[in-house]
Amino acid sequence: MPTEGNFQFADSSLPPLQDGEVLLRSLYISVDPYLRGRMRAGRSYVAPFEIGDVITSGVVGEVIESSHSGFQPGEVAVGHLGWRLYNVARGEALTNVDPTIAPISTALGVLGMPGLTAYFGLFDIGKPNAGETVVVSGAAGAVGMTVCQLAKITGCSVVGIAGSDDKNKYLLDELGIDAALNYKTDNIGKALKTACPNGVDVYFDNVGGAVSDAVLPMINNGSRTVLCGQISIYNLDKPDIGLRPQPFLLVNSSLMKGFIISIYMSRFAEGIRQLATWVKEGKLKYAETIVDGFENTPRAFIGLFSGDNLGKQLVKI
Amino acid sequence: MPTEGNFQFADSSLPPLQDGEVLLRSLYISVDPYLRGRMRAGRSYVAPFEIGDVITSGVVGEVIESSHSGFQPGEVAVGHLGWRLYNVARGEALTNVDPTIAPISTALGVLGMPGLTAYFGLFDIGKPNAGETVVVSGAAGAVGMTVCQLAKITGCSVVGIAGSDDKNKYLLDELGIDAALNYKTDNIGKALKTACPNGVDVYFDNVGGAVSDAVLPMINNGSRTVLCGQISIYNLDKPDIGLRPQPFLLVNSSLMKGFIISIYMSRFAEGIRQLATWVKEGKLKYAETIVDGFENTPRAFIGLFSGDNLGKQLVKI
Repeated sequence: MPTEGNFQFADSSLPPLQDGEVLLRSLYISVDPYLRGRMRAGRSYVAPFEIGDVITSGVVGEVIESSHSGFQPGEVAVGHLGWRLYNVARGEALTNVDPTIAPISTALGVLGMPGLTAYFGLFDIGKPNAGETVVVSGAAGAVGMTVCQLAKITGCSVVGIAGSDDKNKYLLDELGIDAALNYKTDNIGKALKTACPNGVDVYFDNVGGAVSDAVLPMINNGSRTVLCGQISIYNLDKPDIGLRPQPFLLVNSSLMKGFIISIYMSRFAEGIRQLATWVKEGKLKYAETIVDGFENTPRAFIGLFSGDNLGKQLVKI
Repeated sequence: MPTEGNFQFADSSLPPLQDGEVLLRSLYISVDPYLRGRMRAGRSYVAPFEIGDVITSGVVGEVIESSHSGFQPGEVAVGHLGWRLYNVARGEALTNVDPTIAPISTALGVLGMPGLTAYFGLFDIGKPNAGETVVVSGAAGAVGMTVCQLAKITGCSVVGIAGSDDKNKYLLDELGIDAALNYKTDNIGKALKTACPNGVDVYFDNVGGAVSDAVLPMINNGSRTVLCGQISIYNLDKPDIGLRPQPFLLVNSSLMKGFIISIYMSRFAEGIRQLATWVKEGKLKYAETIVDGFENTPRAFIGLFSGDNLGKQLVKI
């Protein structure tokens, strides 16, 4: 488990702006579970951070100075930037944020990477059909709650698994899912049998570990398991031992697939357009947990692993 | 582990032949690992056998009497039939076997279900490309040795895993695969690293368990794992605990998929035609392990789980 002592703040000076570059003042920083994978040696989605590197993730900022024609001072933009108060970035690496569609923080949540991850993971791999049962682990996180609602929009029976009764109340009352289970207090195996009388057709997994051990014995013939995250194991210092899913996948002719959102880059615009439409129509809600102050960024990140957040965890500068 | 004591021989009389039916004298009976799944209560590919049922599997027989125009006495046919000396079957459930293409026993092996399982599992799920590394567990079985050769035909580097040095000598010398590992005597993790310097792109898995625990940490980005069988666990009386593959699938955007060959039924003719062509061209070899005598059918079946067979295990009547 990372501690605040693993992080260090440092002062540095900004390089002078080159042609095509933009200077941004950070407004919101995204902290994401997947970043934990970059904090260990060895293969993950992307290369590991080096010790002493500036951590990078999604950052929404205000344009302060620009030598790129696509960005004017006072506008808002989002990019994969450093955990810094100010970033200099090339314009091509930034995307304009339109504050009239939704609050600018959503560019890091439902209208950003987490929303796209939910959209493509569910529709392109999970391929849910109306009437099917969709189980979502980490259901109260930024990705999970979007998946829950996209599955409801599709006409599925949706069962969310989260770690507190407050979160589950939100999932049931605000997002209208069909059942919400608490993996910390429920007998998850029994609760799933009650919540999924017709078995599980799509399992959208953000968590892994013991939660998946309970879900996978219930998959139906032809089911699809979307591997989006495995937050339960990111801080393990040993191999992940448990119930092997192969026997269940085998006898049910079922699929399990991991993905990284960058492979859908050519379709990001389509995804954002659709998600924004549903947000505007009131069909897609979002929640944010916002920690104030740049100095609290490490703490906000570490809190992800004890499930402090409902929806998207952000740091407001 | 099943014992011969779990099986019982019984005499019964044949029903009179109805219109459209065919009487066959059994010549070869196929014993297959997947049948073990039908010998326990609970979900498998197909419904479990009831106690007292006649076991059914692939049987090649000579037509003795026929009231179906597609089958004449003296011809040979194959079908999913009882472990009986004589079977009565509807003509629609039988397929003619042409003895001029290859020995009739191949209708239960390379030109039958095992061949089709290799063909569709590898090409439809594994989707190998020339130059990629394909690892096959249970490589010396009827399915595995076909997969090895189809992957070689595709231009892949092929690494087989089997349970004896004799089998591996056959795989290397007769089938020309690139490396053959003995999971009983090799340090399989180390041996795989040497045999697969570029990682694993396709893992065709007939075995599961500890063998898969060694292969899956080596999968490449975008890899495909074909779940065809899990023979190492068919006789376990506890849940299958081990290395969960999800973390490897996740960080490598990789697929794992189980399948049952019957979903490809509409393409069986295509598969058999292609396999027969390669057999005739000498590009696709096969091996058979033949036990003589109907009374030895249970023993031949049980022997599958200690790996007695090289290639297709048959009982000759």
